[in-house]
Amino acid sequence: MFAQQTENPNQEEKQSLSLITETAEEGFEVAIQLARKGVTSTQPDKDVLFMLRDVYSKDPDALIASSQVIAIHFQTVAAANNYWRQENEDQ
Amino acid sequence: MFAQQTENPNQEEKQSLSLITETAEEGFEVAIQLARKGVTSTQPDKDVLFMLRDVYSKDPDALIASSQVIAIHFQTVAAANNYWRQENEDQ
Amino acid sequence: MFAQQTENPNQEEKQSLSLITETAEEGFEVAIQLARKGVTSTQPDKDVLFMLRDVYSKDPDALIASSQVIAIHFQTVAAANNYWRQENEDQ
Amino acid sequence: MFAQQTENPNQEEKQSLSLITETAEEGFEVAIQLARKGVTSTQPDKDVLFMLRDVYSKDPDALIASSQVIAIHFQTVAAANNYWRQENEDQ
Amino acid sequence: MFAQQTENPNQEEKQSLSLITETAEEGFEVAIQLARKGVTSTQPDKDVLFMLRDVYSKDPDALIASSQVIAIHFQTVAAANNYWRQENEDQ
Amino acid sequence: MFAQQTENPNQEEKQSLSLITETAEEGFEVAIQLARKGVTSTQPDKDVLFMLRDVYSKDPDALIASSQVIAIHFQTVAAANNYWRQENEDQ
Repeated sequence: MFAQQTENPNQEEKQSLSLITETAEEGFEVAIQLARKGVTSTQPDKDVLFMLRDVYSKDPDALIASSQVIAIHFQTVAAANNYWRQENEDQ
Repeated sequence: MFAQQTENPNQEEKQSLSLITETAEEGFEVAIQLARKGVTSTQPDKDVLFMLRDVYSKDPDALIASSQVIAIHFQTVAAANNYWRQENEDQ
Repeated sequence: MFAQQTENPNQEEKQSLSLITETAEEGFEVAIQLARKGVTSTQPDKDVLFMLRDVYSKDPDALIASSQVIAIHFQTVAAANNYWRQENEDQ
Repeated sequence: MFAQQTENPNQEEKQSLSLITETAEEGFEVAIQLARKGVTSTQPDKDVLFMLRDVYSKDPDALIASSQVIAIHFQTVAAANNYWRQENEDQ
Repeated sequence: MFAQQTENPNQEEKQSLSLITETAEEGFEVAIQLARKGVTSTQPDKDVLFMLRDVYSKDPDALIASSQVIAIHFQTVAAANNYWRQENEDQ
Repeated sequence: MFAQQTENPNQEEKQSLSLITETAEEGFEVAIQLARKGVTSTQPDKDVLFMLRDVYSKDPDALIASSQVIAIHFQTVAAANNYWRQENEDQ
């Protein structure tokens, strides 16, 4: 459903899920990973998911809804990382 | 509605619901369990749920909506576990 | 709209609404109760609610949406109870 | 859109909006009031709202969506009141 | 999309956006302002927005969805103001 | 999907995503940027996104849904910045 992320190829989803990341950018990748994980937990058949993606990726409502799920997960990941405050700012 | 989880067969839903888990991965399983629990509390008839699942599992909107419910529960579970920070990081 | 809960028959909705529970399981029941309360506050006519429930309980989207409302209330109840941490864990 | 609340007739919406209440029950009333306030801020014409309510109150999706808005506001009100913890419990 | 607010004519949206308000009532106005700002950031053409508003303001689902966006922003504004606790209460 | 933001041309999305901003106004821009990032992570093809935007920008439901995603991200950004309290207020 969600586009496959290939930026963290070493991060195996099943074995080492962690909310802690070094940067906000990486945290956003985790949020996408979590959103995808929620979909595959409901529909594990990758062939069905592939068929649906064709319809889905051209449906604005589905795209926005996906963005919303990512946003909810990003809230979680950002809180887990204390918003990456110390990393970037002295605030 | 949500795919049956079989990874924690010893965790009886009714008797020992706990938000505290050792890993984020297990926490995600609890989030899925809670989402499923919300559905069955509204429609307890498993035959009806089974019929609906056929329609449902091929509907991108329903899949994304399910992922969203899981995301909301995962926020709760992650907060309950202090985001599994101490486990993985010194942050 | 939401299935009638009969597990806490002594808990009168109007007189003693409390977010504090002993277990996460009971907290989930309160979340269901709050979701139902939100529906009846908008449509108090129980006959109409009964008619709608027939349509509703066979609609996957409505079931997931209900599960989502429960999830939001469960966030509130879980926070109110400090996630039942002390009860189950030393964390 | 939302059913008119008559339980707090002395609480004028415009002049004395407060999130602080004595009980969770009253807090839920404030959440309903806030949800209604959000609707009327977008559609202030009470005649239109009245016409729409007829359609709306028989639509399960709209009822659940209303319940969701109330749930979000109830999160805010409950946090504002520290979940009415001291009032009811020693936790 | 959202009804124009005229109660704070001196508050220029672009120049002085602030989440801090003196009262909960004013905080609700900021939440409405933020919801409107989210819509105009996606569709800046005011003529299109005006056309859409005619359809929109008679659609219960859209009205409830708007109320939900306001509710989410009100959570933010209320937290920013520590729920206006000190102002109204000694809690 | 979301209107291109040109106010922070120097802020490269991929390289320097940060939740920390000086003002609430800038924080809202980051929320819009995050919402757009969620959409493009699911549908990276900019031509498809462009085609969809024509339909999308005239659909009230999609506009409100977009505003909602922005609202969720703004919660995150506002929390990250401690609601810009010290900047504007002594509260």
